[in-house]
Amino acid sequence: VTSHKPVVAVIGTGLIGASVALALKENGYCSKVLGVGRTATSVENALKVGAIDEVLPDCASAAQADVIMLAAPVRAIISHLRELGLCDNRARLIMDAGSVKAPIVEAALESGLGGIFVGGHPMAGSEKSGAVHARADLFEKRTFFIVPTREASDKSLEEAERLVGALGAVPCRIGSKEHDKTVALVSHLPYLAAVTLSELAGNSIDSVHALKKGIAGGFRDVTRIADSSPEMWDDILSLNGANIEEWLDLLVGSAREIVAKARDNDNLEKLLADIREKRRKLLE
Amino acid sequence: VTSHKPVVAVIGTGLIGASVALALKENGYCSKVLGVGRTATSVENALKVGAIDEVLPDCASAAQADVIMLAAPVRAIISHLRELGLCDNRARLIMDAGSVKAPIVEAALESGLGGIFVGGHPMAGSEKSGAVHARADLFEKRTFFIVPTREASDKSLEEAERLVGALGAVPCRIGSKEHDKTVALVSHLPYLAAVTLSELAGNSIDSVHALKKGIAGGFRDVTRIADSSPEMWDDILSLNGANIEEWLDLLVGSAREIVAKARDNDNLEKLLADIREKRRKLLE
Repeated sequence: VTSHKPVVAVIGTGLIGASVALALKENGYCSKVLGVGRTATSVENALKVGAIDEVLPDCASAAQADVIMLAAPVRAIISHLRELGLCDNRARLIMDAGSVKAPIVEAALESGLGGIFVGGHPMAGSEKSGAVHARADLFEKRTFFIVPTREASDKSLEEAERLVGALGAVPCRIGSKEHDKTVALVSHLPYLAAVTLSELAGNSIDSVHALKKGIAGGFRDVTRIADSSPEMWDDILSLNGANIEEWLDLLVGSAREIVAKARDNDNLEKLLADIREKRRKLLE
Repeated sequence: VTSHKPVVAVIGTGLIGASVALALKENGYCSKVLGVGRTATSVENALKVGAIDEVLPDCASAAQADVIMLAAPVRAIISHLRELGLCDNRARLIMDAGSVKAPIVEAALESGLGGIFVGGHPMAGSEKSGAVHARADLFEKRTFFIVPTREASDKSLEEAERLVGALGAVPCRIGSKEHDKTVALVSHLPYLAAVTLSELAGNSIDSVHALKKGIAGGFRDVTRIADSSPEMWDDILSLNGANIEEWLDLLVGSAREIVAKARDNDNLEKLLADIREKRRKLLE
């Protein structure tokens, strides 16, 4: 029976890649996991936490696996797809976990991998990075967006859903453009807010003497995601900038409107209570 | 010995008032705590959790206490100060816990309470409200801003520092204007960001179909403080609007700059890493 279980290769052995590997092994989805990491430390950590069984030297050697999971920053995923496009792929599924889908789906098609590639994006993560923080239950009950290319085969789609199921995640099919617009609002814009608040506070430390003493839980919570990987976010902001900018315009308009109402001494209590209610419904 | 311990009255028996009461009792600062609440539920909860020993019918009757703590939304604090100004005060200290200090200090002076009033602001709190969430250790090791009026007596200032010490908090003296500018940056602007992100997402639920499924920990963290009391924040935004607006202009400028760099394909990694480092230093 186990002979039918796929050999999985994860390319990228950080928090996401190692957590995928741990979950797939724990749930018996695969017979073994091969890992390609960018640094010696990264693969060593993934070996140490038991996420991967063997280390592969490069992306091309992952083409021997049955299922390939690309768990790297978005630009790295794109260049891995180009490399894999040049290989003699045995894989029945190439999937990824990148945060921006349109450029990745496009790269898969351009690399001639449209039939076996299925885009993916788990709505789970952490401001922490590295395999040392990996957890087999990271994706448990979380949405896992599945973004097929227009050429995706039924077989690869079925395999993708099987894999997502093995992670304990909830698959949700979506087009790449709709995906990118959605995450620009619920994930990328909040990061931009966190990072600009951190920048403004960081730059004000000399002029605002009590700044450090004034910082409490609110600031910490709001800016927590500003602690996550700069490399990952460089790619996201650059490759999803147009969507983020559209949402930013609306956000700025809304902030200015609230401040103007406050200045005019309008009663804001009802507005703020309505927003609180809307947020609670979103998080239900 | 206990006869020298002050009788404390807390006006406002929500999260902050009840936590102050619990801490002062636990640390033996006072002989008993009297409470004035706005609703029957509020005082009942404060009695139930053991924060207050007796209920007073109104603000004026609190004038019999030795120490009065005003723990209400800012506008309510201002009107309580006006009421107390008309009473025959026995208090050696009137303190408050409001988030905007300039208008409160001004109201204390105008009410003839400048000598016994000392402004206060604990940098602690929660998005939860009500005495049911009160904790004696809420202020433990947190900054407690102390904002004297220009008329403050040494005796009232000493009493204020004794009280803050009994809360386990770290006293930090600051002028009202500097205070209001500081908290506008580290607390009020993050709230504004949280609330506008929540509003934008809440208003987009019909047009962005996968919105609810796309929401994960990042959005939840960034917007958490949008769950706190609308009444409290109405007062803060209205009474500290000018400071908030100044910071907002800088924040918007910084966000637009980052997005423009992303669009121009500048390498953002170093900038984002620098910001992360600055934030870490702020939170040390």
